[in-house]
Amino acid sequence: MRQSQLFTRTKKDAPKDEVSKNAQLLIRAGFINKEMAGVYSFLPLGLRTLNKVIQVIREEMNAVGGQELSLTALQDKSLWEKTDRWDDAKVDVWFKTALKNGTEVGLGWSHEEPLTRLMQQQISSYRDLPVLVYQFQTKFRNETRAKSGIMRTREFIMKDLYSFSRTKEEHEKVYASVRSAYIRVFDRVGLGKTTYPAFASGGAFSKYSEEFQTVSDAGEDIIYIDEASGHALNSEVLNDEVLADLGLKRENLVEKKSIEVGNIFSLGTKFSEPLGLTFKDEEGKLQPVIMGCYGIGPARVMGTIAEILSDENGLVWPESVAPFRVHLISLNTDEKADEIYTALTTAGIEVLYDDRDMSAGEKFAESDLLGMPYRVVVGKRSLASGKAEVKKRTEDESQEMAFDDLVSFFKK
Amino acid sequence: MRQSQLFTRTKKDAPKDEVSKNAQLLIRAGFINKEMAGVYSFLPLGLRTLNKVIQVIREEMNAVGGQELSLTALQDKSLWEKTDRWDDAKVDVWFKTALKNGTEVGLGWSHEEPLTRLMQQQISSYRDLPVLVYQFQTKFRNETRAKSGIMRTREFIMKDLYSFSRTKEEHEKVYASVRSAYIRVFDRVGLGKTTYPAFASGGAFSKYSEEFQTVSDAGEDIIYIDEASGHALNSEVLNDEVLADLGLKRENLVEKKSIEVGNIFSLGTKFSEPLGLTFKDEEGKLQPVIMGCYGIGPARVMGTIAEILSDENGLVWPESVAPFRVHLISLNTDEKADEIYTALTTAGIEVLYDDRDMSAGEKFAESDLLGMPYRVVVGKRSLASGKAEVKKRTEDESQEMAFDDLVSFFKK
Repeated sequence: MRQSQLFTRTKKDAPKDEVSKNAQLLIRAGFINKEMAGVYSFLPLGLRTLNKVIQVIREEMNAVGGQELSLTALQDKSLWEKTDRWDDAKVDVWFKTALKNGTEVGLGWSHEEPLTRLMQQQISSYRDLPVLVYQFQTKFRNETRAKSGIMRTREFIMKDLYSFSRTKEEHEKVYASVRSAYIRVFDRVGLGKTTYPAFASGGAFSKYSEEFQTVSDAGEDIIYIDEASGHALNSEVLNDEVLADLGLKRENLVEKKSIEVGNIFSLGTKFSEPLGLTFKDEEGKLQPVIMGCYGIGPARVMGTIAEILSDENGLVWPESVAPFRVHLISLNTDEKADEIYTALTTAGIEVLYDDRDMSAGEKFAESDLLGMPYRVVVGKRSLASGKAEVKKRTEDESQEMAFDDLVSFFKK
Repeated sequence: MRQSQLFTRTKKDAPKDEVSKNAQLLIRAGFINKEMAGVYSFLPLGLRTLNKVIQVIREEMNAVGGQELSLTALQDKSLWEKTDRWDDAKVDVWFKTALKNGTEVGLGWSHEEPLTRLMQQQISSYRDLPVLVYQFQTKFRNETRAKSGIMRTREFIMKDLYSFSRTKEEHEKVYASVRSAYIRVFDRVGLGKTTYPAFASGGAFSKYSEEFQTVSDAGEDIIYIDEASGHALNSEVLNDEVLADLGLKRENLVEKKSIEVGNIFSLGTKFSEPLGLTFKDEEGKLQPVIMGCYGIGPARVMGTIAEILSDENGLVWPESVAPFRVHLISLNTDEKADEIYTALTTAGIEVLYDDRDMSAGEKFAESDLLGMPYRVVVGKRSLASGKAEVKKRTEDESQEMAFDDLVSFFKK
């Protein structure tokens, strides 16, 4: 895309009321816009990155057999009363509104209830199981505080996958496969090395749930890591019984602040029993379906990347989620740069092309702020040498590359 | 996809409270689920079609220079008060709710206000114009009645594009280019022949708006068509003055019921003036930006296709938006059919593969209900002849085709 066409502008300063680094950087770079506290729009560059995070997650959910659907935001009160999750005293994040005829409706903050009801029509026999269903859908949560930028917002797309299994054993196999998919997701988006699966409190049906926690000072959580074993646990379950259970020693644990980038739960029959989701087993006996749920917020993942991979000059995107792979910069060499832009885009390489009339210094500073993985500069000297200057956003040194080699370099 | 894995089931009967044909068929075929009146979820097959409609629209919006972003559902009361569109007496489709601190917020039913405010930060000079911005975003509208299936719902994805121009002349050029893009969209999704751009009432800034109206008895609108000129107009503007204006004669008009599948408006300075969206012209004078807005509801387009292209046996999808291009049916010939399935999918052809243990009659009836463009049957006779039976959903006659020719036939 030609930057002269891109309608968003960068800003020298972040808004004064924005305290989180991720939102400060993303707003300055024109990736997002703050509509109100805890409510952000995604502008073209930001939407490209968000959609790439979504696509990575989608591929991994499909790879473990997930089937994609899309449920609704508007929620039926009577359904949530059956599981005792309608009452604001029990669930304190509801946004509620009403139809014209006065019927109260809620805005979905999670989707166990409507999906369990839906699956009642689809599942009847053991032959229908296991099944994994997921969506990317907008959740609404009436958060009291919202000060972590796009990491904790009142409206956000969430990937929520739900699994339906016959037995505890089958559930555990499904759970393990989705857990592996989560590890692959965080690896692919560049958070693998700093993200730990951490034990957290479970529920009636399993002793623990697991959270995927990325180490960062911007986090709202505290985890304890046992570096030797790679185990981690949320501070909420740090007690002698749990330590004994997991075979960990308190003196080996390192305390870290962290961001919860995903979580996975065994739900057992918590929803299938009150909502009557059963199947006929091989002997014809009705059994409740065993469920699991598995969440990732793509915008929180994007915010976490912005928090922890950025540097003092701006954003630093991994290739997997960068809005564009290459930032091509013309320094008053538009004819040659146009030619390179056409060659690269024709070869299917995603290029943001700075074809504007601005100083080299301004262009470089803005390029660092936007954070594409590669910067390719075509200056006056390039025209003489036939070579462009190629620099990775994560490195200080650039290399000279013949114009003709650029396509093959980026195609690999 | 193997149908044995697909979790949705077809139904013999539609729900009794569902009066619209589109929803009856889509529910029976397992494309959508009714969550409550006017609120539908999209199941895997339905989501595939919806996403294809979205992708067709996206390609055409990009082709006229549209830049995609995503605004939010939660809306700031103070902003909408500036244009006098917050009051329920003025706008009767608001859903409203409140933050924890009591601040009232709305759920966006359109996005002129937040986008105009956003563009204030991005537009300052005549050099920044024209610009076209669009999104696919969930709108909420508190409709009193909702009985047209997925064609009028309380929650739906809408493509809304907004244009920002310097002058009335520039606006008219932009308007004409988006209008052409709309015509291409309806052509591509199979509604071209039955969809008319129809004059409708304008506003303070232009005499008319235009609606794209698809002729259908399921429609909520009445249009009058002059077949000779191809002109059409909404019944709301059928009067002598308008007829004279458009050079139409009342006796040549044919009355038809129709579905409004899109609309385009010239907004003039209706939003830019109260919200202060201006630019400096070439003489350094501040001028208000001239705006236009352009809407299409992808689910309404999908519902319209379901209404008007279906037959007595079920849905009939055009190739551009079918969930899968081919419905491959094995009649106890799984080994051969598996081989064909692998060959077709490896070649990048989208195939729904009925690998289930069911009678031929049941499989054929269900295949007609689901409505993929091509049905490929591999029966016992095929094994002897080396040929599959290929039939278009829109035709009665099938043709025999050698197994080895299937990939090249569908690849073209």
